[in-house]
Amino acid sequence: MKAVTLGELMLRLEPFDYLRFVQSEDFEATFGGGEANVAVSLANYGIDAKFVSKLPKHEIGQAAINSLRKYGVDTSYVVRGGDRVGIYFLEKGASQRASKVIYDRAGSAFALSESKEYNWDEIFKGVTWFHFSGITPALGENVAKLTEEACIAAKKHGVTISCDLNYRNKLWSKEKAREVMTKLMKYVDVCIGNEDDANDVFGIKAENNDTSAGKLNKAGYVSVAQQLINKFGFKYVAITLRTSISASENNWAAMIYDGKTPYLSKEYHMNIIDRVGGGDSFAGGLIYALMNEYPLQETIDFAVAASCLKHSIEGDFNLVSVDEVKKLAAGDGSGRVQR
Amino acid sequence: MKAVTLGELMLRLEPFDYLRFVQSEDFEATFGGGEANVAVSLANYGIDAKFVSKLPKHEIGQAAINSLRKYGVDTSYVVRGGDRVGIYFLEKGASQRASKVIYDRAGSAFALSESKEYNWDEIFKGVTWFHFSGITPALGENVAKLTEEACIAAKKHGVTISCDLNYRNKLWSKEKAREVMTKLMKYVDVCIGNEDDANDVFGIKAENNDTSAGKLNKAGYVSVAQQLINKFGFKYVAITLRTSISASENNWAAMIYDGKTPYLSKEYHMNIIDRVGGGDSFAGGLIYALMNEYPLQETIDFAVAASCLKHSIEGDFNLVSVDEVKKLAAGDGSGRVQR
Amino acid sequence: MKAVTLGELMLRLEPFDYLRFVQSEDFEATFGGGEANVAVSLANYGIDAKFVSKLPKHEIGQAAINSLRKYGVDTSYVVRGGDRVGIYFLEKGASQRASKVIYDRAGSAFALSESKEYNWDEIFKGVTWFHFSGITPALGENVAKLTEEACIAAKKHGVTISCDLNYRNKLWSKEKAREVMTKLMKYVDVCIGNEDDANDVFGIKAENNDTSAGKLNKAGYVSVAQQLINKFGFKYVAITLRTSISASENNWAAMIYDGKTPYLSKEYHMNIIDRVGGGDSFAGGLIYALMNEYPLQETIDFAVAASCLKHSIEGDFNLVSVDEVKKLAAGDGSGRVQR
Amino acid sequence: MKAVTLGELMLRLEPFDYLRFVQSEDFEATFGGGEANVAVSLANYGIDAKFVSKLPKHEIGQAAINSLRKYGVDTSYVVRGGDRVGIYFLEKGASQRASKVIYDRAGSAFALSESKEYNWDEIFKGVTWFHFSGITPALGENVAKLTEEACIAAKKHGVTISCDLNYRNKLWSKEKAREVMTKLMKYVDVCIGNEDDANDVFGIKAENNDTSAGKLNKAGYVSVAQQLINKFGFKYVAITLRTSISASENNWAAMIYDGKTPYLSKEYHMNIIDRVGGGDSFAGGLIYALMNEYPLQETIDFAVAASCLKHSIEGDFNLVSVDEVKKLAAGDGSGRVQR
Amino acid sequence: MKAVTLGELMLRLEPFDYLRFVQSEDFEATFGGGEANVAVSLANYGIDAKFVSKLPKHEIGQAAINSLRKYGVDTSYVVRGGDRVGIYFLEKGASQRASKVIYDRAGSAFALSESKEYNWDEIFKGVTWFHFSGITPALGENVAKLTEEACIAAKKHGVTISCDLNYRNKLWSKEKAREVMTKLMKYVDVCIGNEDDANDVFGIKAENNDTSAGKLNKAGYVSVAQQLINKFGFKYVAITLRTSISASENNWAAMIYDGKTPYLSKEYHMNIIDRVGGGDSFAGGLIYALMNEYPLQETIDFAVAASCLKHSIEGDFNLVSVDEVKKLAAGDGSGRVQR
Amino acid sequence: MKAVTLGELMLRLEPFDYLRFVQSEDFEATFGGGEANVAVSLANYGIDAKFVSKLPKHEIGQAAINSLRKYGVDTSYVVRGGDRVGIYFLEKGASQRASKVIYDRAGSAFALSESKEYNWDEIFKGVTWFHFSGITPALGENVAKLTEEACIAAKKHGVTISCDLNYRNKLWSKEKAREVMTKLMKYVDVCIGNEDDANDVFGIKAENNDTSAGKLNKAGYVSVAQQLINKFGFKYVAITLRTSISASENNWAAMIYDGKTPYLSKEYHMNIIDRVGGGDSFAGGLIYALMNEYPLQETIDFAVAASCLKHSIEGDFNLVSVDEVKKLAAGDGSGRVQR
Repeated sequence: MKAVTLGELMLRLEPFDYLRFVQSEDFEATFGGGEANVAVSLANYGIDAKFVSKLPKHEIGQAAINSLRKYGVDTSYVVRGGDRVGIYFLEKGASQRASKVIYDRAGSAFALSESKEYNWDEIFKGVTWFHFSGITPALGENVAKLTEEACIAAKKHGVTISCDLNYRNKLWSKEKAREVMTKLMKYVDVCIGNEDDANDVFGIKAENNDTSAGKLNKAGYVSVAQQLINKFGFKYVAITLRTSISASENNWAAMIYDGKTPYLSKEYHMNIIDRVGGGDSFAGGLIYALMNEYPLQETIDFAVAASCLKHSIEGDFNLVSVDEVKKLAAGDGSGRVQR
Repeated sequence: MKAVTLGELMLRLEPFDYLRFVQSEDFEATFGGGEANVAVSLANYGIDAKFVSKLPKHEIGQAAINSLRKYGVDTSYVVRGGDRVGIYFLEKGASQRASKVIYDRAGSAFALSESKEYNWDEIFKGVTWFHFSGITPALGENVAKLTEEACIAAKKHGVTISCDLNYRNKLWSKEKAREVMTKLMKYVDVCIGNEDDANDVFGIKAENNDTSAGKLNKAGYVSVAQQLINKFGFKYVAITLRTSISASENNWAAMIYDGKTPYLSKEYHMNIIDRVGGGDSFAGGLIYALMNEYPLQETIDFAVAASCLKHSIEGDFNLVSVDEVKKLAAGDGSGRVQR
Repeated sequence: MKAVTLGELMLRLEPFDYLRFVQSEDFEATFGGGEANVAVSLANYGIDAKFVSKLPKHEIGQAAINSLRKYGVDTSYVVRGGDRVGIYFLEKGASQRASKVIYDRAGSAFALSESKEYNWDEIFKGVTWFHFSGITPALGENVAKLTEEACIAAKKHGVTISCDLNYRNKLWSKEKAREVMTKLMKYVDVCIGNEDDANDVFGIKAENNDTSAGKLNKAGYVSVAQQLINKFGFKYVAITLRTSISASENNWAAMIYDGKTPYLSKEYHMNIIDRVGGGDSFAGGLIYALMNEYPLQETIDFAVAASCLKHSIEGDFNLVSVDEVKKLAAGDGSGRVQR
Repeated sequence: MKAVTLGELMLRLEPFDYLRFVQSEDFEATFGGGEANVAVSLANYGIDAKFVSKLPKHEIGQAAINSLRKYGVDTSYVVRGGDRVGIYFLEKGASQRASKVIYDRAGSAFALSESKEYNWDEIFKGVTWFHFSGITPALGENVAKLTEEACIAAKKHGVTISCDLNYRNKLWSKEKAREVMTKLMKYVDVCIGNEDDANDVFGIKAENNDTSAGKLNKAGYVSVAQQLINKFGFKYVAITLRTSISASENNWAAMIYDGKTPYLSKEYHMNIIDRVGGGDSFAGGLIYALMNEYPLQETIDFAVAASCLKHSIEGDFNLVSVDEVKKLAAGDGSGRVQR
Repeated sequence: MKAVTLGELMLRLEPFDYLRFVQSEDFEATFGGGEANVAVSLANYGIDAKFVSKLPKHEIGQAAINSLRKYGVDTSYVVRGGDRVGIYFLEKGASQRASKVIYDRAGSAFALSESKEYNWDEIFKGVTWFHFSGITPALGENVAKLTEEACIAAKKHGVTISCDLNYRNKLWSKEKAREVMTKLMKYVDVCIGNEDDANDVFGIKAENNDTSAGKLNKAGYVSVAQQLINKFGFKYVAITLRTSISASENNWAAMIYDGKTPYLSKEYHMNIIDRVGGGDSFAGGLIYALMNEYPLQETIDFAVAASCLKHSIEGDFNLVSVDEVKKLAAGDGSGRVQR
Repeated sequence: MKAVTLGELMLRLEPFDYLRFVQSEDFEATFGGGEANVAVSLANYGIDAKFVSKLPKHEIGQAAINSLRKYGVDTSYVVRGGDRVGIYFLEKGASQRASKVIYDRAGSAFALSESKEYNWDEIFKGVTWFHFSGITPALGENVAKLTEEACIAAKKHGVTISCDLNYRNKLWSKEKAREVMTKLMKYVDVCIGNEDDANDVFGIKAENNDTSAGKLNKAGYVSVAQQLINKFGFKYVAITLRTSISASENNWAAMIYDGKTPYLSKEYHMNIIDRVGGGDSFAGGLIYALMNEYPLQETIDFAVAASCLKHSIEGDFNLVSVDEVKKLAAGDGSGRVQR
């Protein structure tokens, strides 16, 4: 099975351990980005995953490519050219101190790329699934346009399309997001979001739900999902439910809804190693399960277990196997040494 | 606004991660010390903070100076000379294993310095606040004497004086501490201590309070504060309230009392990254709030939020901004990624 | 007092921090192995501890020797020769992600060694205690044979023998384990195991006990211990009781039984730094307490406090002093800074 | 004595040791840039050095500020604002493999800043020396313009001006450089360059000189210096003479010329630790010597010894004292341990 | 163009910096092995390079796979199974202290693999070049046999075969090597060796040559090459010429001979960063040049420049581009910063 | 064979790589000191080496003990007590930048110890050789006195005594050194020094010798040695001859003289990894060779080869085997990989 994701791969620069930016004399240098993270998840699960983007020819661009090849992602459709690899600086929080992200991604090779640089027909040949997130069209008019052309080509090839709403207010306003995303939603089959995205992007509110109180209100999420389905005709809506106790401890669960029945996962209490990429790892698990036609309860259980494990792994990428995810989904979260 | 702190800046040598001393082949080398830590807090909040001390001319002394300049502390009144930078070795504890400090500070340049090396009149020109802690006079008769002369000069310039009792039984006996500190208290306007200091230094006990049981007993702390005010005429007494669950988890709160009303902060449950300098960061927050004439409830909320954040930061220094402290004081301790 | 332990010392290769194997560009390289770990515990407590094994003459073998000498273990009875130091790769888990061990120990110098290479009479001269674990005889017929010969020689010299059952299913089948271990048990005075070992090795089940539910069932453990005593005539049976909440948090307690009265320790809630070697540190504490003829309640309290502290220490070795253990056993687990 | 330098301070990201970009999982994160490097040199020599630039308010901008404050540079005239800190990636070469620089500095806060953001009259009050390099005006028309306005203001305040030609062909063409630099040269008193700059920027060639053959041809350099003086009326021209044997070994010397007599330094054979900032450290030494009115032979000896030492120091900054430079200039380059 | 290499990929464990094995608490963990190193060279040059071997399914085996995928090597023909990844420990020498290798490779998955596990016909489909070294058949009778079957299949598909003699006396005796290698030479078109290999493996001596004196004797090498051609009918013989001044400095050159004319490269004086894989990088450069039908002088210049650069790069792999090699081959070894 | 050395073991704190003190955020923490270094050399060569000193009971003192036990030195005669472990800070030089040592050793446990704390009769029982250096008596009157008492006891037990003059002008004046050392020399059989020591301590000058010109003048050294023998009746005088080209490159040779014939070693050109402990490693090699009654030419060749290798090893200790030293002494300094 083949899948394609489209987006930006950034250089992630992070102080060691829990140092603050102003204390740091070194950065861990890895790569990450919503759609690339999904591609790595899929490649780890054995899917033939292609990542589509644009990266400079120089060595920093090459290192970005290599970070994906290492985990088996097919990078042959990454256009090479442009000047910059987008950067994000990440300071890891702890306890009451929140993690901080400083974006330095303007003017990246991908953000400046044009649809004509990509051969969509060749890219989608034989492909089953296409995924992008709301970050991609937020990078600029040109990228929004090429995202739409990718969707059109994907549809032409009968590809299922998923979109993680992934609203980032540092990239665009809610108004702009609503305008652009509304246009794209007509191609989307599976809509993924967290507890805030539907409201931020489409103004759709969960009724009777109070995330600040840390309570999951199933009815509220079903209400949101139903409204999304009503408005855009999605086949499935999946919503992640995070309760932030502190930067060190979170609870994590999710729901998938097919317009009829809501399927709710169990909730995990997590000691957090790295929270970035948590949503992407959920999307990766969800897509894998749906590509393999797992029943919906198994699908949501797999996706949540996959992303629960991600929170224990350094870096944007979720480096887990299908077996490891299934073991946790089956209930073994005791963390006993495997020897 | 200008503030002055007086004390010793030490080289802090700490095994990496959670290694024990006997396992360590490397030390993290930072600098710290109660009054220097307060100066860094104040400089981070935008106060013109001067640190007064004595440090050798050699490169280790210079590195100590640089560690303060980096964060904007004015080091122009640090006398240069002498042979040693005081050292403390710190082994970070975890779970039931306590952190350990080994002092190697005897004979440091500051501990051997004399009052005549400091130009107190010049130092206190235009200054609003002067802070020292009980560690400073504990370093020797000569240092106790220069602390008193600093207090006299400060008073002459109309400077408000705060003192953190900070009793260290490895530095002096309770008897000696009581004798010397009693003499100094007459200059002090704001007295800061933890739940044990008042008893250790002045034999003043909290009535009806049981810290070993981890319970905060408001009435007990008010009783201690009232006795301190009665005895020394302090304007304010501030007391920090730590509940040590283990080396990895603490609860943290504080109270300020003006002789009439006790103002109690909320209590934070903290996953600890570095607990050293916690009290100093409280003093730093408190002084900032009082210098800016915050109402007392806001003052104690600011000071406790500031020091709560410190526990998530490596090193002696509390590297947080006023905005970050206010955000936590306003209730956002969920640790959600800021992006 | 002199003690001897017999077993394999392996090179332990571990990714830094919480990195997964596939992310790691570096390994921490330490040494460890059940019986060597016990020897280090005993040496730290002031016992003259001899470790008996075989290690190659080359520098990796020498580094293994040095790792024990550093902590005062007598390595003069380690036979030098053979080609390989056994290796185990350890990936540290966190939260719901379990730690993983990959063994690469086949063909090690010790696993290929023969009884005739060891001068048992000289080794046990003046010795009070001999310890081995179920891992040693699991390494092969030759090693099982030399273990038995060691037991015979120890008995001849009036040495007390302890055995930690330590069943490892990657090393041998339950059937093979039962056959070999049954033969060895007749020499053993003190039998140590965790909640699964008695069942895995001898098919002896705790009645009315449910470890998966995380509940300690005292009656169940007494039942197991009684059956072991009935079958093999042990003087004491000690059982550790671990409740794995996740890879980051465990509860920990233990029981010792003399055939008449069960002595149960308090239970510790632990934030885990390194869980490997936890059982060995229990054995080390137990042996020390029994060698010093502590009363049984003190014995079990000392052994559990010792191993509780081990979980906060990196590496296989439990680097704690008698004073530190006694302090925790006496109830001080608050982790307050010692300064 | 007060000096001002104007330019960009960049984040310098460098793989550890001699790793190539594509191997690197971490970057050393320091800060550097031609004019900031000169300011650090001057501050280390005891000059009151002010660095003028623009840097963002966020933590990466703050860390850049801190990197200068640490070494005593006055950053109070750095304008705060804008989005980006310019970045350069540095791969350190060895033997026949050259070091590589990848610039990612477009759109930095300084490159987008305008003259009106700087209060030149206040900046140059009481200042003796102003330094900039050819990199500053190369950053854009707006920066070229503000450089000229700085020169005009400096001249108004009677400040001596030095300029290091520092031609970078990745920043602008030779034609553009000649046009802009020619306009600026009329304000310049001291012109600094390497063996290629005069030709690259002004088309002025050393007669009878062959740098590729590694031979210093004194007559050739005098010819270049004389032509520069003839054309622009400089008071002094200083030229550095580097012979690159390989990335690991260089020879290093320089000449200063006052229009009458050429003063040539001795030549050093250097094992290179970090070659970046070598030219800036020469400028720093030269300016210090000229500010202190050293005789010209002493001036060039000091400047070359200073920059020789820089090649043994990691990072852009030349962290040496006047005493250390003088000791080498006096002939002690034996590297004997100082104890 | 497609190329195949066959051999073992090992885990390379190396103390940091110049630490000795007995000092090391950490190992750099990379992967390497003669034929894998050649595959990486070829992939870096743009060749579709396939590496054929066998590696375990566990995470250490996976990490080995990933190390090749990262640099674009096709690993789809690596058989997965077996227990061990072979290991070699490397201590880096300096000055008069030689580098040391300790092999721990017995019983690796590849060393125990059988010819029938490989589908030679599929592997060689469309392939132009096949490379192996003398290390491969030295791993055991079974591996010698599968090497021969690979040669037979390659010949059947019209593939050119190169062999690097690579004699390792820790793996087999000279007698055994001669017997096995003689049988394999009949398939080989291009024979590669260093100054000792021809003598060690085939007893063919360079006449009138004295490597211990550090002198290259062209006539001697031609004599060896001619004898090899006479005996085995090779199309080309290429010989590397290393002069070891110390572990820190080497001279490096090579010759290729076609039975008529010897083509000698220039000699490079190298400051050594990592000398391991130097010969493999020569083979990689040579094969690339021959696959692209460079003239023989250009071929030997390219191969020697490629391997000269390798000595400045950490790890077994030669991470250089065709452009970088050509630049050095064209004479630019000055190591000037590229910016 | 048993040997005893007497002196101070210090904590050595060193910035990573070539960082200057003011750049360093971490220190490598090892242990070293002249006489301890000799003990480690001897233990590595298989001698039963005892180190006599005093170290605190706390964990830093314990880590010092462990650093010696690791390499097999007998520490059972180290007195435990006192407050401080002496410290020296070491900044490693490169090229023209010299290494720097900052001592912070005043008031160490050993420097404050008294002769009565050592049981000299027990210490020298069965011992063949006793070694100390001029650093030991320089630590204070009390230590000079206990050194003399050690010498007297050693003589009583028929022990051969060697002394490395090791003059350190930061520890005492030349006058004081001459007075104290003259008194001790009467016990000494073998006197070791570098090219300056005899002059610094005893005012004995090499005739016709010019070390600053980097030339070895054999006649000059013989003259010094003869004068030393004449004055103190030494059996042998050994002098090391270092030519410092730079901090990165030194030449190294030595001479031993028995009053009749001077035996001069070959001279090595060294790329320096760590130069500290070079003289101690010479003493260690010399003592080993003399204890084993090597002929004098072999003795000096062994000692110089041993210390040549030390310069390639990080830390104070010379971690080489007899075989490695003999191999170099026999002429193999080519640094070829041993595999």
